[in-house]
Amino acid sequence: MLRSRLFFLPRKNAPADAVTASHQLLTRASFFRQGQGAGLWETLPLGKRVLDKLQAIIVSEMDAIEGCQQVEMPSLMTSETWRKTKRWDAIGQEMFRLRDRKDTEMMLAPTHEEAFTELVAGMHGIVSRAHLPIYLYQIGRKFRDELRPRAGLLRAREFIMKDLYTFDESEKKALETYEKVCRAYERIFNERLGCKVLKAAADSGNMGGTYSHEFHFESPVGEDVVIKCDTGSFCANTEVTKLKGGDSCTDLSCSCKGSGKLVETKCIEVGHAFYLGTKYSAPLAARFVPEGDTKPSPLQMGSYGLGVTRIIASIVETSHDSSGIIWPKAIAPFQIVLVGAPGADARLVSETFAALKTKFGSELLFDDRGENVGMSSKLIDAKLIGAPFIVVVRKTGEFEIIERSTQQTSTVKDLSHLGSKLT
Amino acid sequence: MLRSRLFFLPRKNAPADAVTASHQLLTRASFFRQGQGAGLWETLPLGKRVLDKLQAIIVSEMDAIEGCQQVEMPSLMTSETWRKTKRWDAIGQEMFRLRDRKDTEMMLAPTHEEAFTELVAGMHGIVSRAHLPIYLYQIGRKFRDELRPRAGLLRAREFIMKDLYTFDESEKKALETYEKVCRAYERIFNERLGCKVLKAAADSGNMGGTYSHEFHFESPVGEDVVIKCDTGSFCANTEVTKLKGGDSCTDLSCSCKGSGKLVETKCIEVGHAFYLGTKYSAPLAARFVPEGDTKPSPLQMGSYGLGVTRIIASIVETSHDSSGIIWPKAIAPFQIVLVGAPGADARLVSETFAALKTKFGSELLFDDRGENVGMSSKLIDAKLIGAPFIVVVRKTGEFEIIERSTQQTSTVKDLSHLGSKLT
Repeated sequence: MLRSRLFFLPRKNAPADAVTASHQLLTRASFFRQGQGAGLWETLPLGKRVLDKLQAIIVSEMDAIEGCQQVEMPSLMTSETWRKTKRWDAIGQEMFRLRDRKDTEMMLAPTHEEAFTELVAGMHGIVSRAHLPIYLYQIGRKFRDELRPRAGLLRAREFIMKDLYTFDESEKKALETYEKVCRAYERIFNERLGCKVLKAAADSGNMGGTYSHEFHFESPVGEDVVIKCDTGSFCANTEVTKLKGGDSCTDLSCSCKGSGKLVETKCIEVGHAFYLGTKYSAPLAARFVPEGDTKPSPLQMGSYGLGVTRIIASIVETSHDSSGIIWPKAIAPFQIVLVGAPGADARLVSETFAALKTKFGSELLFDDRGENVGMSSKLIDAKLIGAPFIVVVRKTGEFEIIERSTQQTSTVKDLSHLGSKLT
Repeated sequence: MLRSRLFFLPRKNAPADAVTASHQLLTRASFFRQGQGAGLWETLPLGKRVLDKLQAIIVSEMDAIEGCQQVEMPSLMTSETWRKTKRWDAIGQEMFRLRDRKDTEMMLAPTHEEAFTELVAGMHGIVSRAHLPIYLYQIGRKFRDELRPRAGLLRAREFIMKDLYTFDESEKKALETYEKVCRAYERIFNERLGCKVLKAAADSGNMGGTYSHEFHFESPVGEDVVIKCDTGSFCANTEVTKLKGGDSCTDLSCSCKGSGKLVETKCIEVGHAFYLGTKYSAPLAARFVPEGDTKPSPLQMGSYGLGVTRIIASIVETSHDSSGIIWPKAIAPFQIVLVGAPGADARLVSETFAALKTKFGSELLFDDRGENVGMSSKLIDAKLIGAPFIVVVRKTGEFEIIERSTQQTSTVKDLSHLGSKLT
């Protein structure tokens, strides 16, 4: 990709209302832009590249769960199933509601428990045990009319979520499913993205159900407060524990066996797992006939969300420096930004571009602007974007590699050795 | 993929309101299911596989247009820009309108001319000529409150579109862009999907602009009527020509030079190209300074839509038989369905599955149900799904290949020769 063709208009200053680093940097570097209305975000070409890579990682880890299949549900729904589960009234102004031309009561789905439960009930009637478990997920837009949209992608009114809904024949199997999904989430964060997340015991809120965990990025801009043991396994949202930061860890299940100290930390919630039991399957009649029984029982459900756009913002919150964003390689918009220094041989710059393009394809961004744009401007832009490597073709014919995360530089003398240093 | 794990519940009968073949077959074979409300469709796992493949083809052809870049716009918008272009009032009940908790006038975008024009104007201020042309597209959900949603995916209220918006510095360049996009559309339909489409001169409707073409699948269930010359190049929607079917072709630009006869044919519109001029760029101030000029002028725009979900339905309308769907290979949910005949050696069936899985990966669907499910049921399901090849492992140890499009069968004696016959 050539810099001159990329829809990329870096700015020195962030919008006046941008207080957090992710809001500032993602808008300054034109990854995202506020749309027509508060909390509505346009995903620009750089942001789209990050989003596509993150979604591909999530899809591959969801598909790796045996039987897990991807679908897409509509955003618009009538109120009918939501009245049956009593959430039409329980959820207040956070739901976008509208009426169609026939005056039908409708909504923009803020989550899809009702839709997936009705899908399973409607397709199967009584679900045959041979079809269980059923695991269905989607990645799509969700709508919540937040009172105070804030911090860019961290609290938006239209945003992208991955949501998985599971249907099992017993509580025991549903809890096995729960563990499987939590392990997939941990793989996504720890192994694929290389980000450290906390898994905290949590409240079920208006989802219902009895067992719930949140996945958090530790960050001072977070709105959740998590209490964790400094040496052991205990970790819980302050909403569900009476323990306090500074106390000794008295949680009986903690691996510290009482030796740890509790620490309070601010967090951004990026994922949530709910064991739902029969809260949705009972009113919406998603049922099966248990082994040895003759009459149908409601299925045991779970629901599992990942805030896709919020993960992007959280990564920027926790991975940036004063020059800009530092992307994990797995979701960087480009792996390499190539820049020619003033006085560098134009032919060598072209050759370098051709050689790296052959090896890295669309992962290479070439700053093809002429020498009327200063070297420092080109480096400022390259660092702002946050690609893992910046390659500078020097006047001497040597190549300088700047590793974005450490800002350390190294020199390569020969073009034929350059590619192998960039992974 | 194992049949027993696939979220696939084939039905003998279509919903009572399903009149067209695509509505009947796509619901009977569980590719799509009606959601909560008329004209709202759930994309089930089989449909998602088709949709993903079609979207990947469209993305690759859009990205092949130099400078063309993908973005994602929100579905929700305030009314402000739509009031400036006068479409807030011009479009009536077809627009889903709502108010947020602060009583802001909002809508679900039925198309995104306003959003993209405002994006370009807002990001650039006055666009530098060095940045032109700007080509931005997205694939996403559109919302139109149709009076009579009908025929399944053919006329839905929430549906998937690819929409591209182009910004050029002159009418001449905008028309060159127009031709480029039309050629990309022809490649998508003719080369990638192997579908014959008509390109017809068309009306601009409420889009504005002065030059417009539609892309059509010929089909008796279509709602458009196109007049075309039986031997020449003339082709136009009846909305824009006074010529009538049965007449001699008197269109002066037609390649038949007066020798052709005009034919009327019913069509499904699947794509639309609009040269928009300055209808949106003038009121929304998307401007640049022309060469040799000092004051800014509005950019010359084009907008280009493809009805993604409608293309899927149109392909089924024009490619099916009494047994089910016949997918083009490029978007078939699976390339191969594997079935073991009654009495076939279980070990050979497993070996065949393993061998084909190695070669075809996730393109293979294995009907792993036991012999309690009859052979004819398995073949009925396999044909309904519409994969290009059905492979039956016979009792004799031979392999029967059924080519779905012709229903012709051939026999392969040796497993090692099977894979090469399936492309």
